[in-house]
Amino acid sequence: MYEYTRSVYYYETDKMGVVHHSNFVRWMEEARTFCFNNIGLAYVETERLGLMAPMTDIRLKYKRPARYGDTFTVRLRVTEYTGVRYRIAYTILNQEGDILVEAESGQAFVGSDYKPVSLAHAAPERHELMKKILQEGMGTP
Amino acid sequence: MYEYTRSVYYYETDKMGVVHHSNFVRWMEEARTFCFNNIGLAYVETERLGLMAPMTDIRLKYKRPARYGDTFTVRLRVTEYTGVRYRIAYTILNQEGDILVEAESGQAFVGSDYKPVSLAHAAPERHELMKKILQEGMGTP
Amino acid sequence: MYEYTRSVYYYETDKMGVVHHSNFVRWMEEARTFCFNNIGLAYVETERLGLMAPMTDIRLKYKRPARYGDTFTVRLRVTEYTGVRYRIAYTILNQEGDILVEAESGQAFVGSDYKPVSLAHAAPERHELMKKILQEGMGTP
Amino acid sequence: MYEYTRSVYYYETDKMGVVHHSNFVRWMEEARTFCFNNIGLAYVETERLGLMAPMTDIRLKYKRPARYGDTFTVRLRVTEYTGVRYRIAYTILNQEGDILVEAESGQAFVGSDYKPVSLAHAAPERHELMKKILQEGMGTP
Repeated sequence: MYEYTRSVYYYETDKMGVVHHSNFVRWMEEARTFCFNNIGLAYVETERLGLMAPMTDIRLKYKRPARYGDTFTVRLRVTEYTGVRYRIAYTILNQEGDILVEAESGQAFVGSDYKPVSLAHAAPERHELMKKILQEGMGTP
Repeated sequence: MYEYTRSVYYYETDKMGVVHHSNFVRWMEEARTFCFNNIGLAYVETERLGLMAPMTDIRLKYKRPARYGDTFTVRLRVTEYTGVRYRIAYTILNQEGDILVEAESGQAFVGSDYKPVSLAHAAPERHELMKKILQEGMGTP
Repeated sequence: MYEYTRSVYYYETDKMGVVHHSNFVRWMEEARTFCFNNIGLAYVETERLGLMAPMTDIRLKYKRPARYGDTFTVRLRVTEYTGVRYRIAYTILNQEGDILVEAESGQAFVGSDYKPVSLAHAAPERHELMKKILQEGMGTP
Repeated sequence: MYEYTRSVYYYETDKMGVVHHSNFVRWMEEARTFCFNNIGLAYVETERLGLMAPMTDIRLKYKRPARYGDTFTVRLRVTEYTGVRYRIAYTILNQEGDILVEAESGQAFVGSDYKPVSLAHAAPERHELMKKILQEGMGTP
């Protein structure tokens, strides 16, 4: 279980007085980037290898609103990895430990033509690392 | 089946060269607002009645990327309405008729304390309209 | 004086209850895109020619807040064009005709190396069109 | 001179491959929030006092693009404070120390009716703190 934490930005709120629901999708990306950077799977490097990892699907359950002044934490873990596709589960909490959002996302490695690519062939070392974090978790930050 | 159409904005793209996946969540909101305005259920008015309709859950399946230069259409329909909660299904297409995204969202009417509110009691006329569009669809724009 | 009009999106508001000030910068871009598309200077085409037009500077004076439910209009005109650089002036109004924002932006044509490019050499027809709209205005939509 | 630092998010880039120019306006807000929080002038508290501080004007000069993978720093200082209005100057740099953006913003304290409010009357302690940071700077983080 890896963790990513930061404060809510004012521009992320809406006139309902709470964080707009679209921003949680962005927080999930921030958390993925942060964690993958830390474990040696930086997305900058993925792109240098000519690969991209677009989203295939995403789902969020909204439990409680996030507010300006809150500090949120995203906990995430890889729940599936096939060599081409992977899934991540997310729990987003506020500073009180209240769950704000439960979410899940799927991504696939593709080339510049958007066709699926096997990471085992395209980048064997990264493939091994993906398998490792699927089995052993990502450790703690 | 109601439709909402507009062009992709440049600021909605990311360095992958396509629209960032978080923006489809925003397009769904734009389409909801547009349609509900047109059928006499403007959200501005919902808020004047002291009600809000926060998201309870959302899910998207990404089929094809949207690009700058594209004009997209969101088709939506109400698939469920309980008097408190409602669900909407969305299909987002590009100008070629290719499906970009299939999505679904759930919302609940709540008061300023974020507790569920029965629309039948709080705003009977809007309740009748919601039942009508569930049964008969929203018509065409 | 060219005009671009649309409604405010909910996700553009913040907890102050009005449109977040960063979004006016995005509305200016939308209006530029819309107008340049209409006069035959589509940015999609600019990019196909291997050119980009990044911002060099921008300034905005905020006069009145924009609110959800409002329909805004951006009026814009090219105020300067040197063959490489151009400036645009913007007035953003609400549906009552109240001025919300007065703004100005500068852009420069550059190649993929971000070095300035003379449009007269790179795309003579577009250069002539730029000169024309500087002198004669952009017409009306 | 106060500093705020973080990494560029993927969703902040556009298809030009660099950070969209509107996001610098948001980075300026993040930096203001961070610094004002740290010196005891949290905006959350400003709002609890029934005050807001909307933007009156903003200007940015774009020097160099910011890229995904970059870590940026915003240096800011209060350059003017009248009791009602204040101005802040910003320099945004990348991890190499290259200046990306030079900017300036103006804000005014207003009440819920958007009319100017004297901080000296509305919140004398905050007024003294504003005068202090104008004269002595904000210290270092």
